[in-house]
This record gives sequence, C-alpha cells and structure tokens, in this order.
Amino acid sequence: LSGSVDAPLVDGVLAGERRAVARAISLIEDGTVERARVMEALFPHTGRAYTIGITGAPGAGKSTLTERLVLRIRRDEATVGVLAVDPSSPYSGGALLGDRVRMQSHATDRGVFIRSMATRGHLGGIALATPEAVRVLDAAGKDYVMIETVGVGQAEVSIANACDTTVVVVNPGWGDAVQAAKAGLMEIADLFVVNKADRDGAREAIRELMQMLDLAETDFRPEIVPTVAVRDEGLDELWAAIRRHRRYQEDGDRLPDRRRRRIAREIRDIAVERLRRRLEGDAAELLDELAEQVRRRRLDPYAAAERLVLGAAPGAERLD
Amino acid sequence: LSGSVDAPLVDGVLAGERRAVARAISLIEDGTVERARVMEALFPHTGRAYTIGITGAPGAGKSTLTERLVLRIRRDEATVGVLAVDPSSPYSGGALLGDRVRMQSHATDRGVFIRSMATRGHLGGIALATPEAVRVLDAAGKDYVMIETVGVGQAEVSIANACDTTVVVVNPGWGDAVQAAKAGLMEIADLFVVNKADRDGAREAIRELMQMLDLAETDFRPEIVPTVAVRDEGLDELWAAIRRHRRYQEDGDRLPDRRRRRIAREIRDIAVERLRRRLEGDAAELLDELAEQVRRRRLDPYAAAERLVLGAAPGAERLD
Repeated sequence: LSGSVDAPLVDGVLAGERRAVARAISLIEDGTVERARVMEALFPHTGRAYTIGITGAPGAGKSTLTERLVLRIRRDEATVGVLAVDPSSPYSGGALLGDRVRMQSHATDRGVFIRSMATRGHLGGIALATPEAVRVLDAAGKDYVMIETVGVGQAEVSIANACDTTVVVVNPGWGDAVQAAKAGLMEIADLFVVNKADRDGAREAIRELMQMLDLAETDFRPEIVPTVAVRDEGLDELWAAIRRHRRYQEDGDRLPDRRRRRIAREIRDIAVERLRRRLEGDAAELLDELAEQVRRRRLDPYAAAERLVLGAAPGAERLD
Repeated sequence: LSGSVDAPLVDGVLAGERRAVARAISLIEDGTVERARVMEALFPHTGRAYTIGITGAPGAGKSTLTERLVLRIRRDEATVGVLAVDPSSPYSGGALLGDRVRMQSHATDRGVFIRSMATRGHLGGIALATPEAVRVLDAAGKDYVMIETVGVGQAEVSIANACDTTVVVVNPGWGDAVQAAKAGLMEIADLFVVNKADRDGAREAIRELMQMLDLAETDFRPEIVPTVAVRDEGLDELWAAIRRHRRYQEDGDRLPDRRRRRIAREIRDIAVERLRRRLEGDAAELLDELAEQVRRRRLDPYAAAERLVLGAAPGAERLD
C-alpha cells in the first residue's frame, strides 16, 4: 500500500465535493490499485454515517420510496448519500439504471449524492465494493447513507443486510410477504414497509407479516409501516420508525456489535477474494491443467483443489 | 481422504438404487466428511451424463416444462435425473418445494429420479453442492441430468450455467426478455423457450429475443422454441433443439472445452471455500479481534485481511 496517493482526490472527498466523490466510487468499481490507496487515506475519516438498506422484490417501489425518504430526511437538515446497487449481470457489467434518470427531484440539492453501482468482473465484486462506496460517502460527511438493492438472490440479500437498519419493502397482494420470506428477507428485516398501501390487500399483507413475525423469536420486533410513496404518504411514519430502530440499537452495545460483525464478514470476504484473484491470475495455467486432469477422471476435484492451493501458495498447506 | 468409505452406499448408487442415490445427495447437502469419501469413490464412474439447465424467472413455468421434457426424453428410452435447486434463504435453510408434491407423473417410473436441493449454511454451499449431486446421478447411470433453478441473482445464474445445454425460459408479455437480459440470462442461454406461447404477446416476445440475439456476437445462435408446457405443446421441438445443440458441441472440441472450463471454476471454488471455512473456524477469534480494531479505526479492512491470512495460514503470505 505504499506509493503516492491522489491527495487532491482525497481532499476533495473529505470536503464533500461531488466530482471527487463520484471519481472515488468509480475507482472502487474499477478495482484499481489506486483505489486501495485512496480508501486507506479516507478510512480514518469514516464511521460516522448511519446506514439504511432498502430492499424488496423488483417493482415494489423501492426507488420512489428511497427518493421520498431522502426528501423527508433533508427536511431534518441531515445530508444523505444513496447507493443504488444494481443486480445486473455478472457477465455484461455496467449499470442498467442511469443515475441521470433517477431522482430528478434532488438534482439541485447539494446535500444529496446519488449513485448507481454495478458489478464489474467477478461474483464477489459488488459485495466488496458496496461497503467501500459507503465509506466514501461517510468520509464525504453524509449523515445518512442509503443502500437500495433488489432483494433477489443470495449476494443481493447479503448486500442489503450490510447496514445499520434494513428496510424490507413488500406490496399488497397475496403471497408477497411469503415471497419475501422465501428470498431470505424476513430474517434480515429491521422494519417492514407495505408500499402501495392504497391497493387491495394491504391489510392482509400487514396481517400476513404480523403472523410471520409472531413465529420469529427475536429481541426486536420489526415495525410494519404502510406507505404510498408516490403520494408521499407514510414517509413521516417510516422516518420515525427508522429513528426508533436507531435509538434501540444505540441503547447498549447493539450498534457496535452489529458493526463489528459486519466488518468481520468484510475482512473475511477480502481475504477470500485475494485467494480467488491469485488463483485466477498467476495460478490460471495450473488451474487449467488440473481441470483437464479432472475432466479425464485422473484426479477428483477435491484433490485438484488441494494441489491448486499448494501450487499457488507454497506453505499454505495448513489452509485446509 | 483416508478412512473407510460406505461401500454399500457407493455400490447402491452405482447400481442406480433410488434410496442410495437419495442418501448420497443428502450427504452432499449436509457437507459431512463422509461425503468427500463417497464422492471420491463415485468420481471415476462419472462423466457420461449430458446435463441440461432449465432457468428463468419465478412463475415462468419451469417445473411443468421440466416435467414434460422428462416425459419426452423417457419416450426415447433414455433415463433422467432432475435436480430442482431451490433459491431459498441463506439464513433459514431447507427446501421450500417438497419433492413429494413435484412431478407426480413420474412417481412410478424407475428411469426418473427427482430431487430438490437447498442451501444449508454458507453462501457458496449450493454452488459447490450442485455439481456433486449431478455426479451422483451421473454415477447412478442417468443419461440426462436436468438442473432446474430460478434465474434470479448471481449465484443462481451461475448454477444454471454449470451444464452442457442451458435453456432459458421466458413468457409472453412486454419486458420479460428484457428482464432476462438484466438478470444475466441472455449471456448464458444456449436455447430459449417462450413458454405459455398461447398467450398474447408471444410473437412480440420472440421478436424481442431475436432482436437481442442480433446484437450478440456469438458462434452459435440460440434457437427460440415456443411451448405450452401445460398442454404438452412444443416439447418435441424443444427436445430436437436440445439435441441439435448437443451435436453442435460434440462436433469438434466444444463440449470438452466447456466442461474443462466448468471444472476449473469448480476447483477454484473448492479452494476458495476451504480458506473461507478455515477463517470461520480456527481463525474466528482472530477475525473478531481484527474486526474490533477496524471498527475503532485503528486498522483498515485490507490491512486486517492481510493479518488474518497470515495468522490463519502461516506461510501463506504469497496469497496476495
């Protein structure tokens, strides 16, 4: 991690300059070496922002809800950063949602920074990049950082869970809560929003959620907040519920415990990712040879993995 | 991998006995040490089965299509194994689809074996378990193994792609093909099925797919097959298209190349998973200490990951 850091970039982020923040997040997406230096310089200035995850099925109204919640938070004079994490292809890369078309109501508000992020490259990419991007917004002085992501798939659910308060958005209609449970969202929810609550079935959706919560044995019972985000209804209640959950966690050691567990996962993921890169880089030729031997049934995959670890990292025989 | 292997279990699988096959797959799901021994014994008897992935959005009709395709394949006297990979919670574990309620039409056919699989434990679990379960069915003498999984999320898409022919199922209706592209399914499709093709918008869906395929530069242009699986329509055409794709791959080195690449991914995933387990096991206390230091901003996450790797695997300093 030696070498010269881009000091104007670091200073720009710390001063909350939009262009510097945008460039730092691009560095993270690209995964360059420069990123590591910039993140190292920013790191001591982080840890202040409170993070809110917004997740749910496609079409649940997460973007509108996020946009309106930002407006509500701004009324309290707090600053907000938003990361829209795009569940796009691990193959094609690139964000499908353009930042330009999103959240036009905040276009001229300097207290708000909005950014879409997408996977570039390998599977673990977005899971590793998201906490770093959160830190950039944190270092830039944002009081709140919201992470909006679609709650489908294991990787996406784990991203939505990497925050201080996780809000799960469902819609009225038979089975939406069941689908959320199936996707693993019940376990991570600190708060439920039944959005589009002016539609038929809103009461049933709330009842369904309550029944599911009755079955769960947890210290904190998540609140259920009905909203109609497009009409700005229920946003005061949602904001109040988020603040209640924050206070609950700040009472005692709950918030530091939660953050330590999250950081532990991140450290582990970075360590695992390093090995993966090593195996895809310098050890690629060995891996290809081993795969051919396995294909010909001369070696089984577990024995091949063992040889790969030994060949890629001499002395690492105790990794098993 | 020394120690006594369960010989009756191995012999039972090789003889194609249902109970032995079911038990071997349960061992894989549970991830026991016994699993490794059984898989090692079965491995030399694998490599013969042709694997077909069936994927698409929830509600696309994958289960019905799979069931009908099994019937069609059985008419050619070939035997079939089906793995329904459940995209269930990484938290709650357990398959939500019961095998008992699935595919009742095959209940008395000894040439068919059907099994749901679910994540137990960590994120990488199902991705590692699926190729092993495929090998059990392969060793049990099944000519075809079908892997049915919902095409949402990165992990699920990569599972659907780990086969010889990948079939992507879409429905009529504006945007379904676009959603499939967004989920990364366009890149992995060897063959498209427009199921429920008796509904409005089927022609538009086919046209939409054709336009997307026009933009892609690939050697093999995926065929598009309309079906109405519930009425058994289009299954002959689908089966013919799968066999054409198989012949295309068997002409030249395409199939061995594809299999070698897939095995290389699997070997790498096993190696990475070993490190992850090590970090969650013996190194858990060190990880917790490091996370607390990072939380207090005394150490940055990358430096912590470096210390973790060194502490967990002395001599592995070249893993970076």
